[in-house]
Amino acid sequence: MVERLVLPEPFVLESGARLEQFEIAYESVGDPTHPVVFVCHALTGDARATDWWSELVGPGRPVDTERFRVICANLLGGCKGTTGPSSIDPATGEPYGLSFPLFTVRDQVEVHRALLRELGVDRVHTAIGGSLGGMQALQWALDHPHELERAVLVCATARLSAQNLAFSKVGRAAILSHDGMAIARMLAHITYLSELGMELKFDRARRAPGPMTMASDFEVEHYLDHQAEIFLARFEPHTYLYLSRVMDYFEPFAEPAGPTPSTRFLVVSFDTDWRFSTAHSVHIEQELMRRGCDVRREEIESPWGHDSFLMHVPAYHALVAGFLR
Amino acid sequence: MVERLVLPEPFVLESGARLEQFEIAYESVGDPTHPVVFVCHALTGDARATDWWSELVGPGRPVDTERFRVICANLLGGCKGTTGPSSIDPATGEPYGLSFPLFTVRDQVEVHRALLRELGVDRVHTAIGGSLGGMQALQWALDHPHELERAVLVCATARLSAQNLAFSKVGRAAILSHDGMAIARMLAHITYLSELGMELKFDRARRAPGPMTMASDFEVEHYLDHQAEIFLARFEPHTYLYLSRVMDYFEPFAEPAGPTPSTRFLVVSFDTDWRFSTAHSVHIEQELMRRGCDVRREEIESPWGHDSFLMHVPAYHALVAGFLR
Repeated sequence: MVERLVLPEPFVLESGARLEQFEIAYESVGDPTHPVVFVCHALTGDARATDWWSELVGPGRPVDTERFRVICANLLGGCKGTTGPSSIDPATGEPYGLSFPLFTVRDQVEVHRALLRELGVDRVHTAIGGSLGGMQALQWALDHPHELERAVLVCATARLSAQNLAFSKVGRAAILSHDGMAIARMLAHITYLSELGMELKFDRARRAPGPMTMASDFEVEHYLDHQAEIFLARFEPHTYLYLSRVMDYFEPFAEPAGPTPSTRFLVVSFDTDWRFSTAHSVHIEQELMRRGCDVRREEIESPWGHDSFLMHVPAYHALVAGFLR
Repeated sequence: MVERLVLPEPFVLESGARLEQFEIAYESVGDPTHPVVFVCHALTGDARATDWWSELVGPGRPVDTERFRVICANLLGGCKGTTGPSSIDPATGEPYGLSFPLFTVRDQVEVHRALLRELGVDRVHTAIGGSLGGMQALQWALDHPHELERAVLVCATARLSAQNLAFSKVGRAAILSHDGMAIARMLAHITYLSELGMELKFDRARRAPGPMTMASDFEVEHYLDHQAEIFLARFEPHTYLYLSRVMDYFEPFAEPAGPTPSTRFLVVSFDTDWRFSTAHSVHIEQELMRRGCDVRREEIESPWGHDSFLMHVPAYHALVAGFLR
């Protein structure tokens, strides 16, 4: 059962911002005298770990609620009972929305530490979390290792890559903007690059030093804004809809095979392309060979992902020039 | 220089739909007596191959405009001079928009074949294209191999995967809808799954047989709609904005290292997770070891991508249960 606890004092964020009233939604499952496993939930989770993580958490499960007291709490900033942007701002009587102060993973750790203090828990056998939950457990262990005997970090990261940042940007743009084609373009643009290529080009560089904002602070975000802006000036939403739908439906080898094509084929892919990876080219090669065609297939090394076909990649250029001779 | 050609007859699509007036924008570069290289452009390209593909096409380039006559034309459905949804419908005097009939890659091939007939070209030395351009060259060679001596397919596919379809869906949703959080969720959901996992679950299965539409024909599209709908009922856009921003800024190892954490760490990743791949976990392991921590790291095989942390993966469960003992 999810319970609510109001902290006895205002909660002060790393940024110095104060939240005068702070409420935490949490669930505690198992014998209160057992060692505590604290479950840190991910981006869209909540305090009911025995629901959303029933594979891992429950009686006889790897996190055994018969051997441990399992505590899970909604995150700072969440919308499942812990104070966040959807809560009522006591100063206005309205939900905070975008007036809610920005915060960090460390602030999220401190909220859960405040909860444990109120519950009289000063030592955690294991903090465990997937994705954002693992990030939180990591921060907790770095800041207060004496409180955590063990930490299990699953699918976690200590820094989002340029590609990760770019996907976050598109998600925010989708929520904040009404300009659909800009979002579609940002999204497609990410799929045309590779994680490595974006890392080489942008890493996590910021436009300017300063506090965190919802705007395009990272270079990779600014780049996506810029590409979307150029694209809106030169392209047309309906064309984008129709052409992308044509691609969705394309499946020539699903049709009955005709006579053997006499065309000579060169099929080229790039090792970092994850839009249409080498597996797609291998499939083309296999189907053409089954039809008795003359096919040459090559995978070329290049850091530039799907966009490599437009780029200066000498081995690729030599291959094409040779094939045309 | 891009030229415009109006076909002498209405153009009839594979679906039977007729386009009464059909115009094609194309560019021909090089000596008209030289062998023809036909360049097929990608989703958002145009007829000026010497501009957008200057790396590959030009004097002395792999596709050498001093040795070949290079022809490139805007696609059927494009917005760069060839008839498409942004063209004026002669029946109404207004742009077609979503009243433009749906079409296929084969229709796009037929439009370019009609252009070549008008130009008096009956034999192509090489058809070359990247991405959608390579898809077009493939369809052309399968349908009319005697017309193409060679075909160069770069970054091409003969069928979009479930993951590819899913990204297309998000792009269309961004253009067609005003519901930003639904789009953000669809996008995020794709990043939580793996290409393989989506293939196993959905492949390219359709909801029902029938002609192509802009609606959610493929099972994977229907699934994304459904997931977005559930998500809108249970979550809150501002929380999504704040929590995703917290993740963007997280970088604990960029801070000065404190004393060695005494916490014992288990760091788990899954081989098909591309949201936070094993490289992210290796980075965590390396940084913790540099600080002298007790770290165990494991990569687990699982087809379910980032979502694996929620799923029934026995090796993962055994690992966690053992670590907690």
